This record gives sequence, structure tokens and C-alpha cells, in this order.
Amino acid sequence: MAEEKEEKKLTEETVKEEKPEKAPRTQKVKENIVFVGSKPPMSYVLAIITSLSAPNAKEITLKARGRAITTAVDTAEITRRRFMKDLKVSKIAIGTEEMPAREGENRARMVSTIEIMLTRE
Amino acid sequence: MAEEKEEKKLTEETVKEEKPEKAPRTQKVKENIVFVGSKPPMSYVLAIITSLSAPNAKEITLKARGRAITTAVDTAEITRRRFMKDLKVSKIAIGTEEMPAREGENRARMVSTIEIMLTRE
Repeated sequence: MAEEKEEKKLTEETVKEEKPEKAPRTQKVKENIVFVGSKPPMSYVLAIITSLSAPNAKEITLKARGRAITTAVDTAEITRRRFMKDLKVSKIAIGTEEMPAREGENRARMVSTIEIMLTRE
Repeated sequence: MAEEKEEKKLTEETVKEEKPEKAPRTQKVKENIVFVGSKPPMSYVLAIITSLSAPNAKEITLKARGRAITTAVDTAEITRRRFMKDLKVSKIAIGTEEMPAREGENRARMVSTIEIMLTRE
């Protein structure tokens, strides 16, 4: 029994040591994404500020589609003008996504998308 | 009376001659702008296609604010994907405009804006 326990402990430790090698933390820093939906802009502003207050976090991307595109632009503008004046819009891209047809419809809908990348100087 | 008439005619002609110097036509080609509002996207798609079918017209800018931002993105995407496949999004800019307060409100509202420039290759 004692041996078994020790083995378990060892495995756990090995797993713990491997985690930083797979680097989920650095990936989070590299690909900071906030998906903007139907909440008021201030919710997403808060998410951006929280995310960018982490050490080494210098970049964040807002993604939105359909009507939330306006909210994404509002979010970027409010964050930049009211809270983090050192933030710059480094890239904006627009695109189209195919959404599955709703019930009663027989064709897929095309929905516009936007990506706004904000970078701290 | 006859003299007066002639004078008027002359002035009119002078004005007419001056107009091409001020070059409203070349300016139109240089600064092709479509203001996107609350109509369905297809109205603006048509405006873009008409405007770009003029000779030397290679560039058009969509401008929108508030909720029309989504319509502007839809318009750009529909034009580019369905009608003019040689059209590229050459620039996107977002910003904020101050609108006068509505009746019953005592503060100016801030409204987000977008500018999407489309260029024919």
C-alpha cells in the first residue's frame, strides 16, 4: 500500500512538471481572444482590462459576428478612450461565416464577422 | 436693361468656367464615399457597384456609425464575395463621434464609427 501511494505521488509530480513544457500559459498570452456577444459593451471592456493586466499580456483580439459587430467596435473604442489610453488598434479584419440553417429555413445563412486586435505599446 | 442682362450672362459664364477648375469631378473619383444607414445592405451594394462602374473609379469608402456598422460590414462582404471578386478591403478604421444630446437627455452621446475602404485591383 505504501509503495502504491508513492508511485501515485510520483506520477502526479511528473504530470505537474510536464505542464509548463506544453505551455498553456504562454499560449494564453499569445492568443488572447475575447468573444463579443449580446451583453453590454462594458462586460467585454472589463474582460479586456483583466486580460491585459496579466504580466506579458500585450495583445488581445476581439471577435464578433452579426449584430455583435457594433458591440465589438464600441468595446474597442470605450477601452481605448476611457480606460487604457496606451492601447492601439493594430489590426482589423472582416469576413464571412456560414451558419447552419435555422429551423424552417432550408438555406445556410451567411454572417459577417469582425476581428479587432488591440496592442499595448 | 440690356446692359444689365449682358452683365449677368457674363457672370454666369464665368462661374461656369470656374467650376471645372475646382474639379468636383476628380474629387468625386478620389473621394468616393457611401454613407451606410438603416436601409438593407443590398441598397448600398448597388450604390457601390454603380459608383465603381464609372471609368477611373478604383476606390470607394463606406462610412457608418452606431448600429449601421454591422450593415457596413455586411455590405462590404456581400459586394466582395458575390458581385465584385476583384475588390479588396484596403483599409478599415474605427473611431468615436460625439453626437448632440437627444431631447430629455443632458449629456452628449458617444457613437462608434467605421470606415471601410474597398479597392479594385
